[in-house]
Amino acid sequence: MNRDKIRVTVWNEFIHEREDERVAAIYPKGIHGAIAEYLSQKPNIEVKTATLDEPQHGLTDEVLRNTDVLIWWGHAAHDKVSDEVVERVYNRIMCDGMGLIVLHSAHYSKIFRKLMGTSCSLRWREDGEKERLWVVSPGHPIAEGIGDYFEIEKTEMYGEFFDIPNPDELVFISWFKGGEVFRSGCCFYRGRGKIFYFRPGHETYPIYHNEKVLLVIENAVRWAAPIKRPKTLTIPRAVHVEPLEP
Amino acid sequence: MNRDKIRVTVWNEFIHEREDERVAAIYPKGIHGAIAEYLSQKPNIEVKTATLDEPQHGLTDEVLRNTDVLIWWGHAAHDKVSDEVVERVYNRIMCDGMGLIVLHSAHYSKIFRKLMGTSCSLRWREDGEKERLWVVSPGHPIAEGIGDYFEIEKTEMYGEFFDIPNPDELVFISWFKGGEVFRSGCCFYRGRGKIFYFRPGHETYPIYHNEKVLLVIENAVRWAAPIKRPKTLTIPRAVHVEPLEP
Amino acid sequence: MNRDKIRVTVWNEFIHEREDERVAAIYPKGIHGAIAEYLSQKPNIEVKTATLDEPQHGLTDEVLRNTDVLIWWGHAAHDKVSDEVVERVYNRIMCDGMGLIVLHSAHYSKIFRKLMGTSCSLRWREDGEKERLWVVSPGHPIAEGIGDYFEIEKTEMYGEFFDIPNPDELVFISWFKGGEVFRSGCCFYRGRGKIFYFRPGHETYPIYHNEKVLLVIENAVRWAAPIKRPKTLTIPRAVHVEPLEP
Amino acid sequence: MNRDKIRVTVWNEFIHEREDERVAAIYPKGIHGAIAEYLSQKPNIEVKTATLDEPQHGLTDEVLRNTDVLIWWGHAAHDKVSDEVVERVYNRIMCDGMGLIVLHSAHYSKIFRKLMGTSCSLRWREDGEKERLWVVSPGHPIAEGIGDYFEIEKTEMYGEFFDIPNPDELVFISWFKGGEVFRSGCCFYRGRGKIFYFRPGHETYPIYHNEKVLLVIENAVRWAAPIKRPKTLTIPRAVHVEPLEP
Repeated sequence: MNRDKIRVTVWNEFIHEREDERVAAIYPKGIHGAIAEYLSQKPNIEVKTATLDEPQHGLTDEVLRNTDVLIWWGHAAHDKVSDEVVERVYNRIMCDGMGLIVLHSAHYSKIFRKLMGTSCSLRWREDGEKERLWVVSPGHPIAEGIGDYFEIEKTEMYGEFFDIPNPDELVFISWFKGGEVFRSGCCFYRGRGKIFYFRPGHETYPIYHNEKVLLVIENAVRWAAPIKRPKTLTIPRAVHVEPLEP
Repeated sequence: MNRDKIRVTVWNEFIHEREDERVAAIYPKGIHGAIAEYLSQKPNIEVKTATLDEPQHGLTDEVLRNTDVLIWWGHAAHDKVSDEVVERVYNRIMCDGMGLIVLHSAHYSKIFRKLMGTSCSLRWREDGEKERLWVVSPGHPIAEGIGDYFEIEKTEMYGEFFDIPNPDELVFISWFKGGEVFRSGCCFYRGRGKIFYFRPGHETYPIYHNEKVLLVIENAVRWAAPIKRPKTLTIPRAVHVEPLEP
Repeated sequence: MNRDKIRVTVWNEFIHEREDERVAAIYPKGIHGAIAEYLSQKPNIEVKTATLDEPQHGLTDEVLRNTDVLIWWGHAAHDKVSDEVVERVYNRIMCDGMGLIVLHSAHYSKIFRKLMGTSCSLRWREDGEKERLWVVSPGHPIAEGIGDYFEIEKTEMYGEFFDIPNPDELVFISWFKGGEVFRSGCCFYRGRGKIFYFRPGHETYPIYHNEKVLLVIENAVRWAAPIKRPKTLTIPRAVHVEPLEP
Repeated sequence: MNRDKIRVTVWNEFIHEREDERVAAIYPKGIHGAIAEYLSQKPNIEVKTATLDEPQHGLTDEVLRNTDVLIWWGHAAHDKVSDEVVERVYNRIMCDGMGLIVLHSAHYSKIFRKLMGTSCSLRWREDGEKERLWVVSPGHPIAEGIGDYFEIEKTEMYGEFFDIPNPDELVFISWFKGGEVFRSGCCFYRGRGKIFYFRPGHETYPIYHNEKVLLVIENAVRWAAPIKRPKTLTIPRAVHVEPLEP
């Protein structure tokens, strides 16, 4: 294994693709498969996948210890994810700095809600309408290769108020034909970890075959990768210390 | 009742004052009593108190419905606060905009950790050393009446890294004689609520008799008071909506 | 004079209203007159106006010393505002904490650009299209009395990328029928001052007769009013100091 | 030239080193020489230097076009830097995304003050006292390789209030033995550019031989390097646009 590579695990609940023919037609290898295939062709990235029905949802201690950035997609089965696994993922982010990329309907995943401390709810509508994502942070590494905006021809709508903490960095704001806006690319620093929420991605549209969407995910992987530092004394526990000065 | 007044409830676990003579000598009416006494003399503020050993910790539905800003002090008994009460306080903040002021060792309270989504841990030392709080947001309403800095002669030390999300507004940074710094006055917007964490306040020092400390708490009460707006559709639940535009 | 009142000065270049009959028909007393009339009916607010063609543009030392919040509207004559007056306004904001509310096309005023340090440029189109302003900070005092969104039936469009620093607090995001989004309500802390940029307000539409728009301006006045504190030692000059500790 | 390398230009006014023997003894090749020597040994970085007394201060169009990150040190001669050169540097940052690293006393440089829009003033004292820099953003790339804090044994003091806009990301807070604190590592996004202000570095102390200080500068170079994107339409000028939607 080459330690300079970013080790990515793409996690998917992997339900719609096996239960709904239309979804299977778009993602024959699953949503995780589509994302993993794209990323595995990019320099300095190493990709694995994991799914809900594997033992421990495929997220054992060993898998997480060897993951630099975890990508999370879920929709129909958030409550089937065990609290024990969520706790393990949470600790790996907070204490070790594993990056987390939260896609679309995973706004309602246990791990994202736990990290945010808010309900993470929003307006929604499934109408196949147009979305246009505007860059509002033109020097941000997650916007690399993206022009002033990019479009998704048909998608599910998410609208404000999106009940999240103010993002530490806001990269994209979406416009929807039906009249709404949405903070669509949101960076959060939590503990030693970096988290990116990215809105696009409904299962019934070929969003994860869109080149711009995939490029943003790749950029986010590089942004969210952990840095190397000594252990942080106070994560996760308060520590009694002696004075540094007389 | 005059609805233009800000209705404050000061909550205290009220344990040290009854078990430790030294603390009782400093706070004969309890920490909640000292804070309530100060605030009750200020214009447009109405104060009540509540403590851990009351039924439902004194925080019934009715009490919370009639509270605009809740002040929280706890230290020895965070885990004795019932999850049901925490959930009720949380919902009142997120959905209705009740303000929350979190004092000193309440950084480790259930309600603050739930709202932050982080461990809220820190370095600490109980040495009676000097703290100097510097204003880093000179136009912020919570700094009203405070000069470039103010001092607390003897206090417990809290030091970085303080495991919280980046504050939405940072008002004070503390200097400690023993060599540490700390983000001591931190504003957070969450849902419809406003939260202020304020560091000073150990039970064995007369911190809540310090005029500057009390003034900051008063300022924070005014800042955190809820605004009047129609209900927010998406707090706390995602809502399906029809298009606003054809 | 009652010092508890917020003393507002509404400044307008006052050109379009005198040169263009259509504008005069909408604002017979000028844009400043319309805003001043509204604010003067509100509790604890005292209003004056000032315009470009008065001596020193009506912004003498004495006027500024007696102004708590300055509202600024300009469009056709930004470069006719004297640098000396801009410097005076700037110093009053930075050193004394006078609030500044910057309306619509005043994004290109000298004072706003000087405060921001950026070009403050944007996309624009004058098509009389619909704007919908979404609240993204539901606990913010500037959103008081506003529902999840409000609409302006016909307006000029402003679109991203809006070249400003990231706002310290983002209150509104606009949706435009033609396909753009815009950060429409932006709070900035600078020195001791508080600045609010508010997008709505073209001269050829009756925007400043819209009740929601006027309410936001009133809320912003209350938010931007200066707080009372001792002078800040280091604004505007670096200061040599002796140690506070041995 | 290898375009994958980050092309750094280290700029120094280069006055103290030629006029003061004590400074010359610490920095025989100048402060720029010390920083350049360190960076040139690091992977994927290419370094040049430029100084005040070169034609156009060594910052011609061609030099800037071939600079990805500019490091700036100045102290005695801020007002000798020509406005034309400042404008050129400013445009290269805002329009093209060149990174800027502002060191120590360059808080008072023309370019930094223009970018910030504030006075950038502060408290100071030259006493050779101890500074301890605490990491408050433990996942930030600029903190890579740094523990919970690092120390500088003898340095000039800078204290709050530091009159800057709130940093977009705050990485370090300094503690000083004499009783002050300071926001010492501050990230700003402006236009397409990324700016990092880093406090350490007085000319009479060997700060730029300190390994931690040099490591932070190297990290900042990598963070501030421009990303590749199409030109941003609205930097630096407002642009009239046609509707994107019918």
